[in-house]
Amino acid sequence: MATVHDIPIGLAATGTRREFDSLGDVDVPADHYWGAQTQRSLEHFNIGDDRMPKEVYHAYGIVKKAAAVVNTDAGRLPEWKGRLIQRVCDEVAAGALDEEFPLYVWQTGSGTQSNMNVNEVISNRCIQLVDGTLGSQRPVHPNDHVNMGQSSNDTFPTAMHVAAFTMTTRKTLPALKRLRDALAQHARTWDDVVKIGRTHLEDATPLTVGQEWSGYHAALDDAIAEVEHATHGLLQLAIGGTAVGTGLNAPTGFGAQVAREIAAMTGAPFQVAPNPFAAQGTLDRMVRAHGALKSLAVTLFKIANDLRWLGSGPRTGLHELLLPANEPGSSIMPGKVNPTQAEAMLMVAIQVIASDVAVTMGGAEGNFELNAFRPILIDNYLHSARILADMSEHFRSYMVEGAALNEPQLASNVERSVMMVTALSPIIGYDKAAVISHHAIAHDLTLKQAALANGVSEELFERVVDPRALTHGG
Amino acid sequence: MATVHDIPIGLAATGTRREFDSLGDVDVPADHYWGAQTQRSLEHFNIGDDRMPKEVYHAYGIVKKAAAVVNTDAGRLPEWKGRLIQRVCDEVAAGALDEEFPLYVWQTGSGTQSNMNVNEVISNRCIQLVDGTLGSQRPVHPNDHVNMGQSSNDTFPTAMHVAAFTMTTRKTLPALKRLRDALAQHARTWDDVVKIGRTHLEDATPLTVGQEWSGYHAALDDAIAEVEHATHGLLQLAIGGTAVGTGLNAPTGFGAQVAREIAAMTGAPFQVAPNPFAAQGTLDRMVRAHGALKSLAVTLFKIANDLRWLGSGPRTGLHELLLPANEPGSSIMPGKVNPTQAEAMLMVAIQVIASDVAVTMGGAEGNFELNAFRPILIDNYLHSARILADMSEHFRSYMVEGAALNEPQLASNVERSVMMVTALSPIIGYDKAAVISHHAIAHDLTLKQAALANGVSEELFERVVDPRALTHGG
Amino acid sequence: MATVHDIPIGLAATGTRREFDSLGDVDVPADHYWGAQTQRSLEHFNIGDDRMPKEVYHAYGIVKKAAAVVNTDAGRLPEWKGRLIQRVCDEVAAGALDEEFPLYVWQTGSGTQSNMNVNEVISNRCIQLVDGTLGSQRPVHPNDHVNMGQSSNDTFPTAMHVAAFTMTTRKTLPALKRLRDALAQHARTWDDVVKIGRTHLEDATPLTVGQEWSGYHAALDDAIAEVEHATHGLLQLAIGGTAVGTGLNAPTGFGAQVAREIAAMTGAPFQVAPNPFAAQGTLDRMVRAHGALKSLAVTLFKIANDLRWLGSGPRTGLHELLLPANEPGSSIMPGKVNPTQAEAMLMVAIQVIASDVAVTMGGAEGNFELNAFRPILIDNYLHSARILADMSEHFRSYMVEGAALNEPQLASNVERSVMMVTALSPIIGYDKAAVISHHAIAHDLTLKQAALANGVSEELFERVVDPRALTHGG
Amino acid sequence: MATVHDIPIGLAATGTRREFDSLGDVDVPADHYWGAQTQRSLEHFNIGDDRMPKEVYHAYGIVKKAAAVVNTDAGRLPEWKGRLIQRVCDEVAAGALDEEFPLYVWQTGSGTQSNMNVNEVISNRCIQLVDGTLGSQRPVHPNDHVNMGQSSNDTFPTAMHVAAFTMTTRKTLPALKRLRDALAQHARTWDDVVKIGRTHLEDATPLTVGQEWSGYHAALDDAIAEVEHATHGLLQLAIGGTAVGTGLNAPTGFGAQVAREIAAMTGAPFQVAPNPFAAQGTLDRMVRAHGALKSLAVTLFKIANDLRWLGSGPRTGLHELLLPANEPGSSIMPGKVNPTQAEAMLMVAIQVIASDVAVTMGGAEGNFELNAFRPILIDNYLHSARILADMSEHFRSYMVEGAALNEPQLASNVERSVMMVTALSPIIGYDKAAVISHHAIAHDLTLKQAALANGVSEELFERVVDPRALTHGG
Repeated sequence: MATVHDIPIGLAATGTRREFDSLGDVDVPADHYWGAQTQRSLEHFNIGDDRMPKEVYHAYGIVKKAAAVVNTDAGRLPEWKGRLIQRVCDEVAAGALDEEFPLYVWQTGSGTQSNMNVNEVISNRCIQLVDGTLGSQRPVHPNDHVNMGQSSNDTFPTAMHVAAFTMTTRKTLPALKRLRDALAQHARTWDDVVKIGRTHLEDATPLTVGQEWSGYHAALDDAIAEVEHATHGLLQLAIGGTAVGTGLNAPTGFGAQVAREIAAMTGAPFQVAPNPFAAQGTLDRMVRAHGALKSLAVTLFKIANDLRWLGSGPRTGLHELLLPANEPGSSIMPGKVNPTQAEAMLMVAIQVIASDVAVTMGGAEGNFELNAFRPILIDNYLHSARILADMSEHFRSYMVEGAALNEPQLASNVERSVMMVTALSPIIGYDKAAVISHHAIAHDLTLKQAALANGVSEELFERVVDPRALTHGG
Repeated sequence: MATVHDIPIGLAATGTRREFDSLGDVDVPADHYWGAQTQRSLEHFNIGDDRMPKEVYHAYGIVKKAAAVVNTDAGRLPEWKGRLIQRVCDEVAAGALDEEFPLYVWQTGSGTQSNMNVNEVISNRCIQLVDGTLGSQRPVHPNDHVNMGQSSNDTFPTAMHVAAFTMTTRKTLPALKRLRDALAQHARTWDDVVKIGRTHLEDATPLTVGQEWSGYHAALDDAIAEVEHATHGLLQLAIGGTAVGTGLNAPTGFGAQVAREIAAMTGAPFQVAPNPFAAQGTLDRMVRAHGALKSLAVTLFKIANDLRWLGSGPRTGLHELLLPANEPGSSIMPGKVNPTQAEAMLMVAIQVIASDVAVTMGGAEGNFELNAFRPILIDNYLHSARILADMSEHFRSYMVEGAALNEPQLASNVERSVMMVTALSPIIGYDKAAVISHHAIAHDLTLKQAALANGVSEELFERVVDPRALTHGG
Repeated sequence: MATVHDIPIGLAATGTRREFDSLGDVDVPADHYWGAQTQRSLEHFNIGDDRMPKEVYHAYGIVKKAAAVVNTDAGRLPEWKGRLIQRVCDEVAAGALDEEFPLYVWQTGSGTQSNMNVNEVISNRCIQLVDGTLGSQRPVHPNDHVNMGQSSNDTFPTAMHVAAFTMTTRKTLPALKRLRDALAQHARTWDDVVKIGRTHLEDATPLTVGQEWSGYHAALDDAIAEVEHATHGLLQLAIGGTAVGTGLNAPTGFGAQVAREIAAMTGAPFQVAPNPFAAQGTLDRMVRAHGALKSLAVTLFKIANDLRWLGSGPRTGLHELLLPANEPGSSIMPGKVNPTQAEAMLMVAIQVIASDVAVTMGGAEGNFELNAFRPILIDNYLHSARILADMSEHFRSYMVEGAALNEPQLASNVERSVMMVTALSPIIGYDKAAVISHHAIAHDLTLKQAALANGVSEELFERVVDPRALTHGG
Repeated sequence: MATVHDIPIGLAATGTRREFDSLGDVDVPADHYWGAQTQRSLEHFNIGDDRMPKEVYHAYGIVKKAAAVVNTDAGRLPEWKGRLIQRVCDEVAAGALDEEFPLYVWQTGSGTQSNMNVNEVISNRCIQLVDGTLGSQRPVHPNDHVNMGQSSNDTFPTAMHVAAFTMTTRKTLPALKRLRDALAQHARTWDDVVKIGRTHLEDATPLTVGQEWSGYHAALDDAIAEVEHATHGLLQLAIGGTAVGTGLNAPTGFGAQVAREIAAMTGAPFQVAPNPFAAQGTLDRMVRAHGALKSLAVTLFKIANDLRWLGSGPRTGLHELLLPANEPGSSIMPGKVNPTQAEAMLMVAIQVIASDVAVTMGGAEGNFELNAFRPILIDNYLHSARILADMSEHFRSYMVEGAALNEPQLASNVERSVMMVTALSPIIGYDKAAVISHHAIAHDLTLKQAALANGVSEELFERVVDPRALTHGG
């Protein structure tokens, strides 16, 4: 048993340090904790600038700690060593070692290099805390101890699910709900403002602005429920399957025990997946979770698109909605204001829709006992969940909440519209009603003028063509 | 009240018949029931050869009948006229008038032309049954009577949901469950056949063939549950919203009543959608339902891909699986047999994945009170649901059920594999174990030969490296 | 040498006929020419209702004839037999035997079953013409004679290229050019009508309607050039590679000779592909050809989308453009007219964009010496090329050509717009100009009123803010 | 005229500095050059962590300089001011001011905020160099001087094309050509090593390894040519159109002159786009350029996929190819080596394919005089071009170049294969040949044993079935 010292994170050394793995020796930067395999990956895969998201490592801190707890409790790790590993796992989970996880998304498809990065960093940080020799892999070995009872094949998808579930429930869903509530607020406030509806972009019958926004609210609420449903599917963890799902080198019940620890640590009801072969050979639940984000993007696209069109103008557009002027809109046209939050939302939605193709293809391409497209799935998932969250916050606070109605425009539209002829249709018949509306448009008349010119009595017209009354059936 | 005669379906006339609509007169083929608007659409939109799927019209028959029942019960339609319309709706729903619905997918985005096609055919068939004048729109008017209380804007998405729900629950899900059960059957039968697992396509540790197939079964079972969940979302119907969701020209409660009738007629718990503005302004629930089919395609792609690779050979491939020889595989290479069912499944899965992009884009593009991309959504949805159903049936009966194991090949692989060195790792350490496996491969030795050459005792080796024992943890 | 009789196409027999292939005997419908392998495929793959497009068989008729010509000229086929095969190939190419090619898209990925379908039909039709016994494969054997020197692996992609090139150059490109010319016509006619431009949907500076349409014309012209470029890439043919690209069983130079015959027969400069291994192992040139159609769809989407928005209204939309009223727009709203051709075009464009995902995935999934995703590629390609062609024709004749300008609306927009303040900016500075435009909007003034209120002289204003002058720089 | 000092880049101040724009005052960090509009954007759009790529700003440095040159030469800018702006533009183009461009991808769809970021930074840096007051916009105003004769609407797409062309021609294409050449090298080296080909994953007839790799080489060469073609399309620049394409506030010929300057500065033959309305209203040429990258990804996917399968094993896979062991492959399985470079390439290819959907959708969504989806297009384009470049380099140096043949395995496959029966087919007929191959497989015989057992003479067999001879036709 080694004495654990209270040494702050950080390595003062300069130059390089010799580390080794099963392929031989490798020099690593002396001021970093990572070892030979991380260094090999850094050199073999410095492709673009897409790094494995930090959230994966935070989740890995939780997974490794949970495994260490179980291994310690069962006596497979000596108490002091188990506690030491757990302590460092807390540092990983808290983000205190984020600088030590430099690897790229474009790496081995199993995530092994990121798992080994975690194992190596925890090993060396433990070694530092007991005044050992960095790179000696003693007394805490990256594979034999930190990775005990585990494989990348089960821990990486476990960390994926933990990271994705956490991001979605803590960041994305709360932001979406705040946006939904802001939509509901407008729906209530504008409940009795009558406007002319549009179908096929063409004038249709009236509804209230509140009804229109109740549709936005309902659609988003529905989309949120689906995200919650699909995110719930991530609660099943691959842990315990080790190399190919059989659990080789893990004790019986290990996966269930580790999942229980993860649940206790996170407060979310994680469980071991009932079939480890499906949990390691596919990433179907993540495909479905991203599918829900994609479908959410569809809903947000529609809402943002409507808002920018309703705000178009000020003189040659629809201009029913007055959008906040957050910034000058043009470098050449003075005084121009544009629906920039809506444009950003449309682009975010498109990016999420595109990422769904990446997640789908990667999800389909698994072979035999492993889906080796994990990095692209988790990177796209977390990216989508994050930009949807941030965008929803900004869209709400810089566009939706500050939107106001251009009531004169709305009223003028109601007055000028001819499609309220529909209300006459059950009384005078579709064909006669059509004659009236064609007459109005051809001769640039109001509906009333055209109706009277075609034999409708003023009394009938006034009784039936009441815009407010037409905003509900019955 | 008119007398209804028992006239079989069919029009003996030749040449054309004059019909009219609000834009004027149109000549239609005298041997067809459709009217002016259908004829206009036929001429303006004969694009490619994609026709609105017949299932949409069958569903429309149900929707129109349900509306007629409600209108008749409420006295808005005279009893005799209501019953007459309902009778013809039964003919539509049963497919007896399929030849009368010739319109293309590429038409108005609301589906109005298909709705009017239905209205016109029902009108004229009713007129025929009471010995009236075809095209007179009397005594059954396509808009005033057949379409009473309805709009394309609420009925078309209602018919979409009914058609999609029906196809998926009656055809797709049963076929998928039969395939799932066939996978389970092999999982049971082959439960104790040991094989070498593969990760990254490279040799890994052993598992049983039954375990591998249990993964296929579990993954498909999971995907089926998601399809069921998403299909359930289609039970909400837009009916009752009429033109823009307000229900103008429909009596209070009309949507709920019609939905109840549809539920009674179909035996499925359809309900009116709680928010008609979302139900008409978006198609989100269909986007999500297709999303579930897409995610199912991901699962099926992986299974089919695994099977064709496991069957590859016979002399230079993996050849663990013996696939049925359904047809000669080559026009030039005599005796060649190919995994054709798997290839077809991969293509079907790709088509469904691609259709998801169409459904997603169309779903996002709705504007204001109407999503005007309905035809492309329902056409892609029904196509996906159908080819997944048929393909699953064929894949099961012509590939999965007849697959057999090449047991000599499986056994030889187990004997030759070196990755069972993993079992020694917890005892001798990862690093020493790695030396042994590298030694085996470099010198073309068996694992045992290499282990013994590196100081592992025969007793230890025999005790630990037992392939069957390695197929489970603990 | 057999005597060839002049027997019209058709088989009078009823019931079934016994045919055989290398797997044994199969009963086929006696009134069809196809043989055992076609029948097997029909039973094993009746999936959905997607049939291999007829254009593939017409192209196959050309390919088989060209091969027969070369084989005959070289004496590998007796003169009479060669001529007999060629004669039947002409029938295939002309579509006279279309009913004999019933196979599905979802079949073997190499297209072997369709190739054998062609071989069998030609064999039996030849046999009929010499009064032989159908199914005897004598004196014209489907493999040994019709398929002589060929494999599905080289002929199917050859037929794909011929079919795709033909469809695109004869149908798609001419339709696109007619649409382009119609756009140019409006650009010329409306060259001096001033309108207010829109960026971000918001009012911007003026341009002429002709300038706007010149942009549509230029964009489409550019897209057409790219389709021509990519279609040109299809002129390289895989023919001559036979089974795996080596040309086994084909004489030296066979591919080049057959390609020359195909060129002579079609009038298009087809050539043998320089590298047969790439031509059979990939479908990259078809991926690129469809990519050009997809990029064309992007252009058409933008144009159609602009037109439907410019036509929106009549009272609450932009309504600068008056679109033809081709059909009643609503089943409930009398007199409604919708931009249905534009909606159909948007859907067609989306379908093509989605098909590009299918073509891309199928293109990527080839393995080793064969890309076995050919049916999905050619089916999607021909579908895209066809609906783009037809849609462009209809869009042109039913929407573009009949579009007219709403000049009062255009003029009123010019009068009311404030963004012409931009012209003052170089003189008074951006900041001062911004004050003026904000002032105009805040106080609902004309630009002139606001300019004068902020110190701009009337003389300066009139000199600088001349809408027509602002439609060009300098 | 102000005196220009030689002040190094950097601002020593702390806290904030007051800046202004047309909407009012904004406090910005005192140690940064950017102004009010940049700061507004930073606050309104801090969404995710996707920043506008630096390459866009480097290109903007070139564009702004070229405009300043033209404006100076024409006397619109005083000589000293023009030279001052040009000097700072050089700093921007060289990346020396990269830290001053912090904006996000998710911003206004026109890129105006990034244009203003550039304008503001150049303005303040100029002001610093003449000892002026930062934020005073004097003597160099961001709009009136730096942006003179320009708009975001024409300069942003100009910068996009310059950035994309530069990245693709300087980085992506050279890397691709090196990879192509490495493939060609193996094709030459292995030109006479015979192997068994595979179609449908199943044994086929022989070819040489060199032939197989010549296919990889040819396919990649073809894909490169297409990337070059599409990149060439980016040489057309939108510059000169200003706000809506008309060139308002830019002198006649300005665009052509600026394009000429850009060409001179970059050495690439950039030109002004012939139709500015298409160049600003669409992004079609960028859509097509990315389409070529996507089609390249298809080619690379196929090659990488083939290589990982050919390298699979070592004991239970195909194992024809020996791939470099770059890093330990498993955290639990000692000695495991995986095809990690191929896996990374497959993921990169998938990401590029997915990005094409983003580029396509963004490309389609332009409205009227502006496509407002520019940021998502350029971000995805540069990302694709970069990861394809880097990945190709790594794939080449860590996988392709070090690959070796497993010649014993290749030879054993040749010996055991039965599909060389194809060579007998022209002599004994397809049907008899099929009997032989079925016989060999059913009875586990060599082809020769089966052939002799079915009546083929040893002389005939030896003469015809010569693997090397079968690798070419004739």
